[in-house]
Parts: sequence; structure tokens; C-alpha cells
Amino acid sequence: MKQYLGIDLGASGFKYGVGDSKHGLQHFANIRIRNKSLEELADIFAQILDDTRNMKIAGIGIGCPGTLHMADAKLVGKNPNLPELTGISVKELLPEHLALPIWVENDANLMALAEASLIDPSVVIGITVGSGIGCGIIQDQQIYHGAHGFAAEPGHCIMVPDGELCSCGQKGCLEAYSSVDGIRRRLRDLNSIYHDLNLPDLIFKRKEVKEIDQVITQGEEILIRALANLITVLDPQTVVLGGGAMELGLYSITHIQQQVLQYIPLAHREIVNIALARYKNQAGIMGAILLCERSAG
Amino acid sequence: MKQYLGIDLGASGFKYGVGDSKHGLQHFANIRIRNKSLEELADIFAQILDDTRNMKIAGIGIGCPGTLHMADAKLVGKNPNLPELTGISVKELLPEHLALPIWVENDANLMALAEASLIDPSVVIGITVGSGIGCGIIQDQQIYHGAHGFAAEPGHCIMVPDGELCSCGQKGCLEAYSSVDGIRRRLRDLNSIYHDLNLPDLIFKRKEVKEIDQVITQGEEILIRALANLITVLDPQTVVLGGGAMELGLYSITHIQQQVLQYIPLAHREIVNIALARYKNQAGIMGAILLCERSAG
Repeated sequence: MKQYLGIDLGASGFKYGVGDSKHGLQHFANIRIRNKSLEELADIFAQILDDTRNMKIAGIGIGCPGTLHMADAKLVGKNPNLPELTGISVKELLPEHLALPIWVENDANLMALAEASLIDPSVVIGITVGSGIGCGIIQDQQIYHGAHGFAAEPGHCIMVPDGELCSCGQKGCLEAYSSVDGIRRRLRDLNSIYHDLNLPDLIFKRKEVKEIDQVITQGEEILIRALANLITVLDPQTVVLGGGAMELGLYSITHIQQQVLQYIPLAHREIVNIALARYKNQAGIMGAILLCERSAG
Repeated sequence: MKQYLGIDLGASGFKYGVGDSKHGLQHFANIRIRNKSLEELADIFAQILDDTRNMKIAGIGIGCPGTLHMADAKLVGKNPNLPELTGISVKELLPEHLALPIWVENDANLMALAEASLIDPSVVIGITVGSGIGCGIIQDQQIYHGAHGFAAEPGHCIMVPDGELCSCGQKGCLEAYSSVDGIRRRLRDLNSIYHDLNLPDLIFKRKEVKEIDQVITQGEEILIRALANLITVLDPQTVVLGGGAMELGLYSITHIQQQVLQYIPLAHREIVNIALARYKNQAGIMGAILLCERSAG
């Protein structure tokens, strides 16, 4: 079986791995981002290629946050997590004349693709909770792209009319309340001294600091309503929750499973399944490798 | 080309027609419902069959409100518009031993199917505004059913947390604010003397009665947010708005087109198309006929 290099671009670092969908990853590593400049991002790609130069790979799959043009993988609109990338494709950051095929896809679509491959149902929704809120919709093991390639952006559904300002410029988006950056921004707006804590510390401090607890609790409640609305519209077999914040326990999967039922129609209550991502922090990479395998045919 | 009988069950009457998708309807009529008992509904089906007995039809397509089990077309959960139908299929109301194939589908799915057939894009969302709020999602000219056949129920998405009681038993659903029954129920809760006006009178009185105007305006605003969220998740090429209330002008299509743009991500703003249903009050029947043509192969 051919091996591929899967790269998952996050707001804080690039995760990458080499492997295939049957045997998993043979190699896995993570390089942190410091300043998010295009030069730094290109340099990290070069480091990854250097690190994997002795492995026989048949292609590269890249998961990238934000909305991508399907034809050229250029980033459309604002991308608060990697702002320098707007209007360009990550392909342009790789060395020229690289003798390998490269496929690029939205990162949350790839997470959802990987998770759906483990459960094989007809419709799977994957949600990533991290700096932002990502989403992928998988239908019969294929990514649902919508009419223009811009589908699956519930992070920018308006959950609170005229609510908190989101990094996308709109007000009241899911992401403004339920993402880690959203939570930090809300604490900053409350003049909280805890607004620049890292996520593990935020989760730890929540027990003793009321303002942190309130902001995280509201983030969870709004995420629950957003999940319920997605289920009501899409009728998935499974909703998979992943991303760094779900892994660290920012929100309780048990609480989410229970509370979502309150907000969905009777017909949906007994059939929907909500679960944590099984590939954990490797879901994006595994999705990128699956993308390579499918695209290479 | 074979002719089919299409029947569209509404809360106030059965519309039906005979024809095909190429030449349109050769016959169109409407029978009003009075008490919604199963006996009355069966009697109306008998009247329709009697009225069309001299036409050569190859099958019957029926659009039915509510959530239907895909296997047997039985109504699942509560159906406030035709409550007697819960747990049974409309097929059971037709005479036994009818020597014709019968296909049943959700009414809004059929409206969306008919409208999508006129524009041929990859993803179309059809929304019906009437006693309730119906929705169909069409992808490559096929109805999107979700994993269990329960998809496309944005009428029961929670738009206002802990909001108005909906006829489905939940609180704050889109339908509780933006449907005609929702508007009437809200006026009744406000002790308005206008709560039992029919729709044309409500629309007329709106100009002079502040409470009616406020309730309708809020219904429109919440519908706009719901449409924006659907677009953000599904990235359709076109959203088609139909149903009796849109035809009578309860909400302004121009206002909806303008305001939805406020609530969707930048990438979506220049590409989404929002239009009124072109088949108007025959969309459900045409969808039922299309269903017959496709199912018969």
C-alpha cells in the first residue's frame, strides 16, 4: 500500500504524519508556529519535507483551516487563525518543482472524513473545537462541499442576534462563544485577568473562578444548540466532536449528549449518536492521507 | 409521456393535478378540509379518484406534511397540521386494491424537487411558509433525506432559546415565530383581537395595527436568520421560497434577499441566489408527479 504525507495546519502548529489508512501512521510529529508569517509557514513545510525525505511517499495531503476555493485551494475571505494565507493557497508555500501530487482540503472536512471512515454510516458531521469551530459533513464517505465549495461553516451561524463580535466580522456567531479564542476574547471584554491563560489553565481555573466558569458554560450551551440545529437539518447518523479543546475536556461529552436531546424533534431523539473523535489529534492527518488515497484513485 | 396524479396535502385543503413534468398539469383542482378526521381525509381521496377516473394515469404521488418513515411513509412524531395522521400512512386512506403504484414523500421535499427541476443546480433549498414551515434539500436533483429520512426540518431549529412554545412541544422553534399558525398563536398570547383573522386580512391589517406588524416583522427577521444559517451550513446555489404565505406576500422577498446577506460569511454573499417558487401553488403537485416519474423509472 502506498504511503502518503498528511499535514494538518493548525493555528498553533503543523502536525504531520506518514502512513496509510489501513496501517495508520508510521511517523508522527508536530512543529509549533511562532509568528504565522508566510516565510515561517514555508520554512515549516521545508522542515517537514526534510524530516520525511527518506520515506517513500506517493503524495501530500494538506488540511487547511478556512474556506477554500475548490479549483485552486486559495483561501477565501477572512481567516483569523492564519490571516496571512488569505487569497493564496498553501500549495504556493511548498518548494517549486516538487515531484509529488498535492491535494488540499479544509481541515475539518478531513477530520470528518477520517472519523466517518471508522464508522461507515451514511451521514456523519464532524465538529472541531479549537481556536475556531470547524465542521465537515460526510455523506456516503464523501465530503459534502455544497454548490460552491463553501459548505459546513456552522461556526459562523448566528446563534445570538446582535451578539458578541466574531473574528469574522459578524456578530453572534457560534465561534464567538464556543471556540477557545472566543472564550478568551469574552474574558478580555469582561476585563478578566485570566483572558490570556492557555487552555489547560482555563479549564483548571474554571473550578474556582466564576467568570471563567460562566463564559465556558455559555460556550457549551451555545454549542449544544448549534449541534441540535445541525441534527434537525441534516439528520446525521453520528456527530463526532474533536479538536484540541474537546480532547482536553473543555466541554463534557456526556453533558452535550444529554442536552442536545432537549433541542431536537422527537423523531431524532432516539437515533442520533454523538461521540468523541476516535483518531483524536491525528484525525486531520489521517483525513489528509485518505484524501490522497481517494484522489490518487 | 405517461400522466400521473399528484396530490398535495395541506392543513387547509388537498390540491391535486394530473399531468407530466414536460407539459405541466392538464387538470388542477382543490378540495378544502373541514374537520381533518381520518374519515374526511379518506373521503377526499375518494373524491379525487372519482374526479380523475376518466384520465389515464400511471400512478399517484402524494406530498404529506410532517416527518415520514422512509420504509412505510408513516408519520413520525407529532404533526400539528394533520394530527390524526400520526403513526399511519396516507396510503392507508386510499381505497384497497387500487391497481396503481403510489409514492409518498414529505410535501416540502416535493416542492423543492419541483423547483430544483426548473433551475438544475447542484444544491437547492426549498422553504414553504404556510401553516408551518417546511423544507426540502435537493442535491443533484435528488431529495436529501439524511441518515434516517428525517432531514430538512429547520422549522424546528431553535432560533430563540427558551422562546415561544411551538406546536411540536419545543420552545423557540423557527415555526413558532415565522409560520402563519405561529403568528396567530403569538397574537392570541398577546390577547390580540386579531388572532383569528385569515392570512389576507392579517396582511391587510398589518398596516394599521401595530401588534400585528410587530409579530409579522419578528417572524420575518427570524426567518431571515434561519435562512442565513441554512446557507452557511449547506452552501446552496439557490434558496426557493414558496408556500401560500409567501405567495400572498406575508414576507417581502426583496427584504429577505437583502437582509440574509448581513448574516452569512463573506464568501457566500456574492453567490447565493434567493427566489420565489416559480411553480407557485402547484409546486407540491409538480413535485409529486416528478416523484412518480423518477420512481417508475
